[in-house]
Amino acid sequence: MAKVDITLIQKLRERTGLGMMDCKKALEETDGDVEKAVELLRKKGAAVAAKRSDKTTTQGIVHAYIHPGAQIGVLIEINCETDFVARTEDVKLFAHDVCMHIAALKPLYLSADQVEHGYLEKEKEILAEQLAQLGKTGKVAEQIMEGKLKKVFSEICLLNQPFVKNDQFTIQQLLEHLIAKTGENIRIARFARYQIGN
Amino acid sequence: MAKVDITLIQKLRERTGLGMMDCKKALEETDGDVEKAVELLRKKGAAVAAKRSDKTTTQGIVHAYIHPGAQIGVLIEINCETDFVARTEDVKLFAHDVCMHIAALKPLYLSADQVEHGYLEKEKEILAEQLAQLGKTGKVAEQIMEGKLKKVFSEICLLNQPFVKNDQFTIQQLLEHLIAKTGENIRIARFARYQIGN
Repeated sequence: MAKVDITLIQKLRERTGLGMMDCKKALEETDGDVEKAVELLRKKGAAVAAKRSDKTTTQGIVHAYIHPGAQIGVLIEINCETDFVARTEDVKLFAHDVCMHIAALKPLYLSADQVEHGYLEKEKEILAEQLAQLGKTGKVAEQIMEGKLKKVFSEICLLNQPFVKNDQFTIQQLLEHLIAKTGENIRIARFARYQIGN
Repeated sequence: MAKVDITLIQKLRERTGLGMMDCKKALEETDGDVEKAVELLRKKGAAVAAKRSDKTTTQGIVHAYIHPGAQIGVLIEINCETDFVARTEDVKLFAHDVCMHIAALKPLYLSADQVEHGYLEKEKEILAEQLAQLGKTGKVAEQIMEGKLKKVFSEICLLNQPFVKNDQFTIQQLLEHLIAKTGENIRIARFARYQIGN
């Protein structure tokens, strides 16, 4: 196996937020191809996250962010399995990053399954109307609809939004990295975003 | 009019949070009786508050408080009439005090009129049952019921709760003092309280 350049490892760490050894191993497995390594680590992270996601999360932290000027404020609750992980810098940084993200990108819901039924139905109706006018029917219309709904979710659902500080990841993927790094199931329990005049 | 002792003025200021001149005047009017002066100032504060309460509040601040240990967090939105007042230390201190109060006293609602209908009906049902068992009927039962409901509100509604740092005032009265002091209509728009394991 080829020796991996330290600058590549550094680059991969910045991209994934994962540890030195994980990044080194991933680059060794992909012969130094950063893109492939990112994909590999994402899959790993997602796999770890899936494995852990049935673990109960009764510990955690509450974190707040007030945007300078005090016109926007965010409160968030992060849950994890142990108090030990709750008190780590990783969790604190994650909570802070997500708070700043929420302040900037104004998500309306936590996840796609929390979107109000009425809201979703109305969106679907509008999209169906647009597709009908374009003469799209059957499977093609369905596929376009799916893509459009995915876009709606990526605009209004926190977990589906691209992370404001690095839009190569969604918040869901950022969370999966944290789960992979800490080895604990972690979830965003809830958030509130207040803005003056809103 | 008798000259008023400075220590009395100081005492009254601590009790009401109002300015030096207001307290001096109130004490002069009540011949140095602190209790009567408190009452006078409260009535004045309430009157000013009533006069101002129809003014639109479109400015304000968002404030947060995270209790040490990060297991409890509070987010609050305070509205007022002008950005000038929003940026004063008085409003900031009020927001901070109310956040700490909410962290400690866990109000479920902002005000009595926001209590869920179902919750209120159930409370009334229980109280009616208790009164019937005690053989209380008619006007007596009504009066007792009213008193008991008032107690319920003072336990679950933020504005009706006695202020945690000085239980001689309710949060509503604390707000009225702030309105009297700033000369602007101010309101608590909303709050969120998150606690790990709740």
